[in-house]
Amino acid sequence: MTWTLARRADKMNPSVIREILKVTEKPGIISFAGGLPSPSTFPIDAMAEAAQRVLSRDGRAALQYSASEGYGPLTEWVAAELARHQGMKVSPSQVLITTGSQQGLDLVAKVLIDSGSKVLVETPTYLGALQAFTPMEPEFVGVGSDEQGPDVADFRAKAAGARFMYVLPNFQNPTGRTMGEARRAELAAAAEAAGVPLVEDNPYGDLWFDAPPPPALSARAPDNAIYLGSFSKILAPGLRLGYIVAPAAVMPKLLQAKQAADLHSPSFNQRLVAEVLKDGFIDRHVPTIRALYKRQCEVMLEALEAHCQGLIEWNRPVGGMFLWGRLPQGVSAVDLLPVAVAHNVAFVPGAAFYADNADARSIRLSFVTASEAQIRTGIAALAAAIRQYQDQHLTQVA
Amino acid sequence: MTWTLARRADKMNPSVIREILKVTEKPGIISFAGGLPSPSTFPIDAMAEAAQRVLSRDGRAALQYSASEGYGPLTEWVAAELARHQGMKVSPSQVLITTGSQQGLDLVAKVLIDSGSKVLVETPTYLGALQAFTPMEPEFVGVGSDEQGPDVADFRAKAAGARFMYVLPNFQNPTGRTMGEARRAELAAAAEAAGVPLVEDNPYGDLWFDAPPPPALSARAPDNAIYLGSFSKILAPGLRLGYIVAPAAVMPKLLQAKQAADLHSPSFNQRLVAEVLKDGFIDRHVPTIRALYKRQCEVMLEALEAHCQGLIEWNRPVGGMFLWGRLPQGVSAVDLLPVAVAHNVAFVPGAAFYADNADARSIRLSFVTASEAQIRTGIAALAAAIRQYQDQHLTQVA
Repeated sequence: MTWTLARRADKMNPSVIREILKVTEKPGIISFAGGLPSPSTFPIDAMAEAAQRVLSRDGRAALQYSASEGYGPLTEWVAAELARHQGMKVSPSQVLITTGSQQGLDLVAKVLIDSGSKVLVETPTYLGALQAFTPMEPEFVGVGSDEQGPDVADFRAKAAGARFMYVLPNFQNPTGRTMGEARRAELAAAAEAAGVPLVEDNPYGDLWFDAPPPPALSARAPDNAIYLGSFSKILAPGLRLGYIVAPAAVMPKLLQAKQAADLHSPSFNQRLVAEVLKDGFIDRHVPTIRALYKRQCEVMLEALEAHCQGLIEWNRPVGGMFLWGRLPQGVSAVDLLPVAVAHNVAFVPGAAFYADNADARSIRLSFVTASEAQIRTGIAALAAAIRQYQDQHLTQVA
Repeated sequence: MTWTLARRADKMNPSVIREILKVTEKPGIISFAGGLPSPSTFPIDAMAEAAQRVLSRDGRAALQYSASEGYGPLTEWVAAELARHQGMKVSPSQVLITTGSQQGLDLVAKVLIDSGSKVLVETPTYLGALQAFTPMEPEFVGVGSDEQGPDVADFRAKAAGARFMYVLPNFQNPTGRTMGEARRAELAAAAEAAGVPLVEDNPYGDLWFDAPPPPALSARAPDNAIYLGSFSKILAPGLRLGYIVAPAAVMPKLLQAKQAADLHSPSFNQRLVAEVLKDGFIDRHVPTIRALYKRQCEVMLEALEAHCQGLIEWNRPVGGMFLWGRLPQGVSAVDLLPVAVAHNVAFVPGAAFYADNADARSIRLSFVTASEAQIRTGIAALAAAIRQYQDQHLTQVA
């Protein structure tokens, strides 16, 4: 045996979700499992026009190496957008363009986590963040959470010595829940008092249905927070562009980690997105995504009411892409999944999203990828699968 | 102070080269410092046409999330190309598309380096690799090298317990040197005998002037090697696409590290490059790059002969982008740089490229970014700067 792997490699695992997605990519399966934005929202024509303009006007610069910090006009757009919608006053120099916001999580891990460092996370939390942090070998501690997000008393009880708390305030992945104004104010103040920075991840914040969520936690104590944003949900994930906003105490190290990780995010993609975003495109485009996802969420809620009363408990997200459900006592989401797939419907068992104390009955349902008709059919099939599972289980017990 | 940084952050530093590049971006400076491919070689029209085809035909897939492994047709192209030019027999499933080959180095570091692990490198070696490996806190050990690359006896003497040796066999950055057939065979055999894997980085291998270099080291002992390739030098760096080829013993962990790092490299860029590469484009395109770089190298060599006899010792690369020089006794490259910049010419002091025992008199000269006229003017200016430095130094000594 020639290869000696790093100790951290033992802790790395294949993404449970990606493994599930492989199973559910069979033709005919209605999948509520993926976290894929609806491709009908991708502005293909605008991208094609912008690609021509960028390549004909600035082709050499768009195809050349560029600054690790990111493309100036794009960092300026981000700073202006954060001022407009998040109440954040940041200069473009505090914005670092990343290869998707997933890379922002990787950079945060490298700069803030030592082996054994305590990292606080919500219960449950984004699986991709657990995966991004894991190679740096943190000790995850789950903060108890309710329908408003993290419980602040539990945060205070667990804060001592933590390197940071990772929090998704808007239409959280996986639960779809959103922190209210009072909870944000309380958590931001408690974090500052405890000397524990917040790492605020906001990929879904623009996808509100009826009213925007409250301003970012990072707006309240900017020197105590790192903010992560993404173009994946408002334009297209296939470009892999996100950004990280950080105070001066950490930005130089994040930038050095970025240089070492991939030199810079693709110059062409950055110029393409900056070109598309010119002239207020986002203000015309994002409302169409909001309307679509709101409608699809309503259809799923109606279908749940029609088919799943007494079988699933579910919440009512006010934005985003996901809805969170809980199966009846005695039904394990992991064991239900193959039964559901046999009924041509798929979901993600919620247990994958917990750092500790997983709820084996929880499930995540995405309402954005399937069509309205598929949502109705799929939810009915899910109900049938649960009933079949219960019947089999009763038979086995009997 | 709220922020406690990870221990590894102390070891991370800003790129010396990027700092130098900022200085040398002043208008009027002829820069031999950068490692930028000549933008005149970027196939802008082919990219523009391919972008239209990809977006009109497969826009939704090109803008959607995609597999961490990479786009199938692109991994197939890579596998075929490696068989054709490198003597490597690999299946597409052994190819992982990365966000530039720089990301390949980051993934290798995460999977193979523990804090304190011994990592062997050439003397000198690619600075970006040192930066990519550093966050995982290796102990670098420089293997003595000559104009053919690493000294195999010194490799054997230092091999015990090393996690891997990092080697750039073709037109190396920074020296421009190339390993001959005998040296490759000897090093590959010694590495296998010592149980020390090779991490072979080959971004420049296609840029040969008169004859292709010998086959990859990875072709000789494929289970003992990781191979890194790049589209940056044969198409365009601004797309940030490279690839990593690894044996089954490490590929699953590299893939998991990739998922955690940025989910996948941009779908759009992968499809764009696969589209451009169709129908033998590379066989028409790369010869034009080779001819240009060969001519520019000849111009620099002529200018060195005309102006720098007795001032600089230099080598004669047979491909790539860089030439390696040595200043006269008593002339420090770092101290010479501001004198040179005052003469409107810039280079990179070679000391940045050494893991240990830096040669303070060494310099790296890129011959691909400046025009022929600029190369002649710049080399004459460099000679004048050295003479002025020597005069000042003599005066000071007197």
